[in-house]
Amino acid sequence: MNIAIVGVGLIGGSIALALKNKDFVTKVIGVDKDETNLTKALNIGFIDEVQSLNEAIKHTDVLILSTPVDVICNILPDILDKINDQQVVMDMGSTKEKLLAIIDKHPKRGRFVACHPMAGTEYSGPEAALPNLFSGKTMIYCDATNSDEDAFDIAESIIDQLEMNTVFMNAKEHDIHTAYVSHISHITSFALALTVLEKEKSQGRIFELASSGFESTVRLAKSSADMWIPIFKQNRKNVMDVLAEHIRQLQNMQNLLEKEDYQSFYKLIKKSNKIKRILK
Amino acid sequence: MNIAIVGVGLIGGSIALALKNKDFVTKVIGVDKDETNLTKALNIGFIDEVQSLNEAIKHTDVLILSTPVDVICNILPDILDKINDQQVVMDMGSTKEKLLAIIDKHPKRGRFVACHPMAGTEYSGPEAALPNLFSGKTMIYCDATNSDEDAFDIAESIIDQLEMNTVFMNAKEHDIHTAYVSHISHITSFALALTVLEKEKSQGRIFELASSGFESTVRLAKSSADMWIPIFKQNRKNVMDVLAEHIRQLQNMQNLLEKEDYQSFYKLIKKSNKIKRILK
Repeated sequence: MNIAIVGVGLIGGSIALALKNKDFVTKVIGVDKDETNLTKALNIGFIDEVQSLNEAIKHTDVLILSTPVDVICNILPDILDKINDQQVVMDMGSTKEKLLAIIDKHPKRGRFVACHPMAGTEYSGPEAALPNLFSGKTMIYCDATNSDEDAFDIAESIIDQLEMNTVFMNAKEHDIHTAYVSHISHITSFALALTVLEKEKSQGRIFELASSGFESTVRLAKSSADMWIPIFKQNRKNVMDVLAEHIRQLQNMQNLLEKEDYQSFYKLIKKSNKIKRILK
Repeated sequence: MNIAIVGVGLIGGSIALALKNKDFVTKVIGVDKDETNLTKALNIGFIDEVQSLNEAIKHTDVLILSTPVDVICNILPDILDKINDQQVVMDMGSTKEKLLAIIDKHPKRGRFVACHPMAGTEYSGPEAALPNLFSGKTMIYCDATNSDEDAFDIAESIIDQLEMNTVFMNAKEHDIHTAYVSHISHITSFALALTVLEKEKSQGRIFELASSGFESTVRLAKSSADMWIPIFKQNRKNVMDVLAEHIRQLQNMQNLLEKEDYQSFYKLIKKSNKIKRILK
């Protein structure tokens, strides 16, 4: 099987590394608008050759789209126009409702399989790729019943190589859940970094004092703006709902501190401790 | 040297484990109001025997206070009343201004060394103790010039065993900085856990979907209310300042999403990325 990785960054590179480690693919073709990234990907060795998107469409069985989500929305309709009835296209984007609406009526809709791996790091680019990034994590398939059965089987045979748990969701449900368990975490980290940078002019002091607790809450603030702005844009309504709720929770704590109502604040912490039951 | 660990939890237990691994102490006496914790500490082996606080004051060279900060404020004046001129008392509390004001005029003030290790985990109790918890982390000494020289030397000889970097600060500066690099992280985690628990009634979905990003921003929400409420109470003013700034940052992002001003939001993320320069 020949595959094309469209967007040779953290996610695309990690998929290619995992597939190469398993000897699952004959050839991996790299597609990216950034020449430097393509050179890095060739040097790391997770792609075998570089092609333009149009060439790659002609020469591959499966195209895996792992660019920022705005780019996926831009290129997918054109890719579907050009592929034949045996080829498969998969995406790895973090938002789905808008994308699936765009191609809803496309005659080749069935050749597309919408995927979202719940895995990543705060780093980006080909050099951030890790062969075991996905192992043990969850892959979400969205609106899978709208994919042709053989297209889904091919996509699944690839995902199987990544050793992930799988979950099925519709696009609407997906975008709501990911706003809660992923997108809001990035917003709070960006805001926390700005809060501390704003106040702590003496940056050496942060470096000296930052404990592992601070590092873990703020590490997502290293994440790429090019990746995250399109996600916030496409999932704007859900992200705004969650953000409003989060601000409300913080204002409630602010209010309890203002009134020195430590008994109610104590109860809130006990309630938040219930997250223990959900996360290991 | 005989030492007493007053409060045999995560911090006290980790200190005792490190000192025992280095064969630095003759005997470790455990003091705690919780009998179960004392039994656990004896079983783990980081204390050699159990004594009441008054007995421990009679039989030890150094007392290390690692209880919640409200308890430290309650017991320290009485301990200083009872110790002799060779004994040393150290605390490991996360707030300092109030504590040091309480004992400012105490005739035995010089026997006290105020310490705060910038290390911890979201877990508590004797079973959470780790021998290498402090290694490579930062220890803050507060108002160290108010400690007698020989008392400070003894405290430092103990801290040296923990393989930490050391920083000196006054109490006021300490409480401001820790509000930024530690206390606010806990507030945001508690609030994030409540936000998600509030909305995600289907807890199984959180479990399935939670990525490592979500886990890292929310893990501090597992932290103990008994430890954190006294910290927020004692550092109320600084925590409220930081929390107000953090809410302002989140509201700014909310406002940009509302207006769909993605260009300004992009710039904010780029600015928050500067945290890369500070944290590895």
